[in-house]
Amino acid sequence: MRPKSRIPKDMMPKRTKIATLLADGKTGFDTTVMGWIRTFRNNQFIALNDGSTNQTLQVVVDFENTDPALLKQLTTGAGIACTGHIVASQGRGQTLEMKATAIQVFGECDPEVYPLQPKKHSLEFLREIAHLRFRTNTFGSVFRIRHHVAWAIHEFFHRRGFVYLHSPIVTGSDAEGAGEMFRVTTLDPVSPPMADGEVNWKEDFFGKATNLTVSGQLEAELGALALSEVYTFGPTFRAENSNTTRHLAEFWMIEPEVAFADLDDNMDLAEAMLKHIVKHVLEQCGDDLTFLEQRLLEEEKSKPQHERSTLALREKLQFCLDNDFARVTYTEAFDILRNSTPNKKKKFQFVLEEWGADLQSEHERYLVEKHFERPVILYNYPAKIKAFYMRLNDDKNTVAAMDILFPGIGEIVGGSQREERYDVLRGKMAEMDIPEEEMQWYLDTRKFGTVPHAGYGLGFERLILFVTGMTNIRDVIPFPRYPGYAAF
Amino acid sequence: MRPKSRIPKDMMPKRTKIATLLADGKTGFDTTVMGWIRTFRNNQFIALNDGSTNQTLQVVVDFENTDPALLKQLTTGAGIACTGHIVASQGRGQTLEMKATAIQVFGECDPEVYPLQPKKHSLEFLREIAHLRFRTNTFGSVFRIRHHVAWAIHEFFHRRGFVYLHSPIVTGSDAEGAGEMFRVTTLDPVSPPMADGEVNWKEDFFGKATNLTVSGQLEAELGALALSEVYTFGPTFRAENSNTTRHLAEFWMIEPEVAFADLDDNMDLAEAMLKHIVKHVLEQCGDDLTFLEQRLLEEEKSKPQHERSTLALREKLQFCLDNDFARVTYTEAFDILRNSTPNKKKKFQFVLEEWGADLQSEHERYLVEKHFERPVILYNYPAKIKAFYMRLNDDKNTVAAMDILFPGIGEIVGGSQREERYDVLRGKMAEMDIPEEEMQWYLDTRKFGTVPHAGYGLGFERLILFVTGMTNIRDVIPFPRYPGYAAF
Repeated sequence: MRPKSRIPKDMMPKRTKIATLLADGKTGFDTTVMGWIRTFRNNQFIALNDGSTNQTLQVVVDFENTDPALLKQLTTGAGIACTGHIVASQGRGQTLEMKATAIQVFGECDPEVYPLQPKKHSLEFLREIAHLRFRTNTFGSVFRIRHHVAWAIHEFFHRRGFVYLHSPIVTGSDAEGAGEMFRVTTLDPVSPPMADGEVNWKEDFFGKATNLTVSGQLEAELGALALSEVYTFGPTFRAENSNTTRHLAEFWMIEPEVAFADLDDNMDLAEAMLKHIVKHVLEQCGDDLTFLEQRLLEEEKSKPQHERSTLALREKLQFCLDNDFARVTYTEAFDILRNSTPNKKKKFQFVLEEWGADLQSEHERYLVEKHFERPVILYNYPAKIKAFYMRLNDDKNTVAAMDILFPGIGEIVGGSQREERYDVLRGKMAEMDIPEEEMQWYLDTRKFGTVPHAGYGLGFERLILFVTGMTNIRDVIPFPRYPGYAAF
Repeated sequence: MRPKSRIPKDMMPKRTKIATLLADGKTGFDTTVMGWIRTFRNNQFIALNDGSTNQTLQVVVDFENTDPALLKQLTTGAGIACTGHIVASQGRGQTLEMKATAIQVFGECDPEVYPLQPKKHSLEFLREIAHLRFRTNTFGSVFRIRHHVAWAIHEFFHRRGFVYLHSPIVTGSDAEGAGEMFRVTTLDPVSPPMADGEVNWKEDFFGKATNLTVSGQLEAELGALALSEVYTFGPTFRAENSNTTRHLAEFWMIEPEVAFADLDDNMDLAEAMLKHIVKHVLEQCGDDLTFLEQRLLEEEKSKPQHERSTLALREKLQFCLDNDFARVTYTEAFDILRNSTPNKKKKFQFVLEEWGADLQSEHERYLVEKHFERPVILYNYPAKIKAFYMRLNDDKNTVAAMDILFPGIGEIVGGSQREERYDVLRGKMAEMDIPEEEMQWYLDTRKFGTVPHAGYGLGFERLILFVTGMTNIRDVIPFPRYPGYAAF
């Protein structure tokens, strides 16, 4: 028997996407569109959205020749198919529209109970119905842009010959100390197997205690020290009780790692990547940026003048594209901050006095928003406040670390040249009480053909905040996870 | 103070990638390459690999004029930089080589203790040193191809206007029943807070019991029913005690979901996607495929004739590209199997008698490898053996589900048209004891503007097995996780 190559196509007619219709701009032909009704005015004008764009297509209903029962079904939120003729539009704000010849209702939407009404809802309310918020203009635009940012990241690294590496999510390694971790287990929660008064993790699924990863960096280094250029793009986790607009318990991170690279290469790579992304979004997401720019302007109207953005959304992105990031050592930045007016007048919550202090978000914001008025790369941080794997500079006091600070967002990238010298690394681990026996695999890369290398981590959601102008990180990930919340 | 736009570049000279040199094929210029020594013959010929390709560059050392102490450092695994003149090669198997004028050793590699010797190692041994196996020909090729497959997937969906959606990793939803789950918690493992003899999950980090996701499908549906075409690409988890060559506890899955699509569209999409990926790999990964094809031939030499592949690796991929997948209903396939020789002679472990039985891997392999001799899409499965969300066909006995079976791999894609009818879905949930109150958000999409939609899940690592010709799934993910194992 020969296999059938196709089963008969009986149910769904072919649809044309609204984005395609509007981009082509052609008129004078028949087609079918499918989507959800945003509004239905005067028993005559359907504004139809299908998620391919934030624009709606106006579908004109010949209401005098339409069954009144059908007209009743055409309410906000209903899912429908419309077949008709595409013509030039007489109305304002649209170039073409459809004169419908047939309408099919897939699914009605009772306006009495549908939570999304054709009016402005608060972001807080929409967060509660995250399963429906994709259907709003704001979240449609945010998640289309999120897609484009992810795409631009893959494109950037792929074109440069990087290998996309999936670092493990469940890990038994807890040596990096990047933050509090979630435990992953299948043991009985009420009476786990015990040994010497402790849980006997040897009986757990993986034969040891395991956690959700806080970073794929160490594993990325293993890849880079063979494939020379790799990047990760995956979820990372922090079990910290942070209820802020900038923190999530589950978020996505991009971590490139490059062999034969120093800190300067690392900064160049990060700046080029960020500019590539911003450029892509400016070029590809015009309609969505226009909408979000307007949304932000509206939102800021209720704020006092000095709290409003000085640049509109697209101006801000263009500025970031057109200007070099400021590159400043920690020591230079520290001097600027110590001599700054808010520090002298003790307006900072943490007044800076001694070199070596960690910079707080208020200091970073001062540097970025007041002093340099552009993205800033801070580098050569005091060794004491940075991780063990960062390369010690010749001054023995600082490490070849760098953070990129963005206006309104703060730290968006953190990276370093890695300590590639076996003995220096072991010394650092001993100092910081990191047990060598758990890190033999990491040390092996320094023992066997070590080479200079560098990398960084980019917080994906923070970048989306920057690009969309949204202000709460819970609004730029489809289903946010934070203390007390893991719905859907 | 004006920011410095660059810090001085003092450490690393610019390197040229070996892949670039070989692709360009130009000679008669000076450059620098960096990488790791694969072999060093006759104190004269370095085979240098930098991970950008599985090819090595021959670097010719003027050993009479080189410090013997340096020559001693040039051992397998050492990390070095070589500067010199690129010339046409006299030797076999290479078109160009470098005449070195300077060699810098970044990191030595003691041949007495380096686990990777210039000889063939078993895959089992290399699995134990997964942190170093990236440096072998086999795993370099596997992970470069893995990158290309991931890239081709993003490219396929991006070009079609799909939105990449990150579904949550930590989830409180356990209604889908796709498999055993890992618990995610921060509660004290020895004495968790209790209430009525049970752990009081309300005191856990998320305020309820949470698990690692087994599938992003339900959340992808939420996205598709607004943005119309979405896909996920993320890690998924199964806490099953499966020690096989086809199962991992942590693996990556791609789950597209499409509004206004039926089962036929779903099959078309999956077949087009798989062909796009195979085409991309055939076009872009020539060297790596050549190596892996040869590796497979060598490996199969020790097997009896009837267990060897009938097609070489690239022939197999080309065949998959050139031929329609067979599309067969469960009922047709069941009849073929019931009347097959192995079923009649009771050679199958599970002899098929009554319509409605789940097909086992031996049956799938018979269909794909013996009967159709090509990829097979099975569809319209008995409702009883499939999940609650699959659309009930008009016959009331089958659902609009489909699985794609690949030679040597088995099921690589599983999908369905989703049940979009509110009442039918609720009836199905009641039948299968799925509590409605936990799934209100899912039911909402059927209540408010429901539309036909369909989607599927692609097992990423199984696809990599197919494309690389590797036979153990632990060898196609950088750091495999399985029962008793979560190293690195």
